[in-house]
Amino acid sequence: MPEPAVRIGVIGATGAVGTVTLELLAERGFAHVRGFASVRSAGKTAAYAGNDLLVEEATPEALAAGDLDLCLFSVGTAASRELVPHAVEGGAICIDKSDAYRLIDGVPLVVVGVNEDVLNGASIIANPNCSALQLACALAPLEAAAGLVRVRLATYQSASGAGDAGIERLRAVAPTRADLTMDWDLDGEEFSEEWKLREETRKILGRSDLLLHATCVRVPVMVGHAQAVWIETERPLSPDEAREALAGSSQVELAELPTPGGAAG
Amino acid sequence: MPEPAVRIGVIGATGAVGTVTLELLAERGFAHVRGFASVRSAGKTAAYAGNDLLVEEATPEALAAGDLDLCLFSVGTAASRELVPHAVEGGAICIDKSDAYRLIDGVPLVVVGVNEDVLNGASIIANPNCSALQLACALAPLEAAAGLVRVRLATYQSASGAGDAGIERLRAVAPTRADLTMDWDLDGEEFSEEWKLREETRKILGRSDLLLHATCVRVPVMVGHAQAVWIETERPLSPDEAREALAGSSQVELAELPTPGGAAG
Repeated sequence: MPEPAVRIGVIGATGAVGTVTLELLAERGFAHVRGFASVRSAGKTAAYAGNDLLVEEATPEALAAGDLDLCLFSVGTAASRELVPHAVEGGAICIDKSDAYRLIDGVPLVVVGVNEDVLNGASIIANPNCSALQLACALAPLEAAAGLVRVRLATYQSASGAGDAGIERLRAVAPTRADLTMDWDLDGEEFSEEWKLREETRKILGRSDLLLHATCVRVPVMVGHAQAVWIETERPLSPDEAREALAGSSQVELAELPTPGGAAG
Repeated sequence: MPEPAVRIGVIGATGAVGTVTLELLAERGFAHVRGFASVRSAGKTAAYAGNDLLVEEATPEALAAGDLDLCLFSVGTAASRELVPHAVEGGAICIDKSDAYRLIDGVPLVVVGVNEDVLNGASIIANPNCSALQLACALAPLEAAAGLVRVRLATYQSASGAGDAGIERLRAVAPTRADLTMDWDLDGEEFSEEWKLREETRKILGRSDLLLHATCVRVPVMVGHAQAVWIETERPLSPDEAREALAGSSQVELAELPTPGGAAG
């Protein structure tokens, strides 16, 4: 973890992810934290460690000014593409949650506890899609234990994965009108989400040959993504051995009956 | 279809399924329809073809009286076990929606359009679990086209599958508190719903050797079950051939983006 003295910028500070990011940074005692947002939200205040944080406008100039060591970007793809290079120019290490940099060669796509060995002094670090992140945590110990050949999975992705807009849409409907949705672009025979999940998982696990097919579905649950996953392995792996491998991972908590509601937070 | 003159008893007439059953019978012009329910609901009225139908108590004596040709049971397992034999004794053909008779040898488990050839004059006809029914409709044409070896699926089952109680539970929670649930009995490493889905599908398709593994999940959607299904076939089957096989079935409607909300009704 960086020193508490590190100067951190949270870009997208008023959004769903930015708000949680600020909470986590406050919990961990970081003293030099600034919040940035688009012109629409700049000038608002965000809660930070019991104080009001005045949210600054995320302009190229502000991010390139050279007074930030670490920038955490939770903005859309287009905004990340525009702003990240300026923060890098200002000398900051940038961790980006959008899909702008995930599949670019040379940009490490990192899941802590799975592949932080690829960090290697990079100035841009990409965060995977939320579904790829949780899947990698579960697959990595199974890959180590028995070698993965093929992965099939169905997702149950919550409204929070679609950001504030997804949360607002779900809030607006009564349970009687909530439906399953696939609110992604259709790309050939797959949704963009399904394609990303395969490509990002391959990159994280360093297994460009991994066969992976996903059916991605948005469910009317507020927070927490679930997945039903079937794997085929190179070497035999009994259910008990699989449990043991998963239980040995710091990134996995085994539960008899996991639910998003039980896992949230 | 039976003659309009057939004398029909709907048992469980005030429940979620019974109510829809009455609507469908009315649409199809059946003139001699009576509604039955437990002592708790007997005496209420149910809508039938614009009139009020006085709901009678579903006693063994009433069902055995010999004045019903066809009985449609939409009651719980215990009630079906108790009452169906009396209706059979009275001479009625009984179609039971509970799981009381589904896996009993000699009782046909029927999906119209898939295996009605097994009816063969039986006096008790079992209706599959809702998930098995819809799965069989999709699998049967693929089995005919290429032979099924293995089926893996994840379900997205709506509240309606848990009857009135499930619908009431979902109505009572705001979208913000709706969660995924697995409200079935755990039976070894599987939920009863997952076990049933395999055994019923095997019986319907006449394929006791079929490898089938399901992960069943209840989603906070009011009506309509969805499934993500992966199949392995004996003979090669291209996506276009699979589409063609499915499109040729009277029980399947192909859609680019099927949702429960779009399919309900």
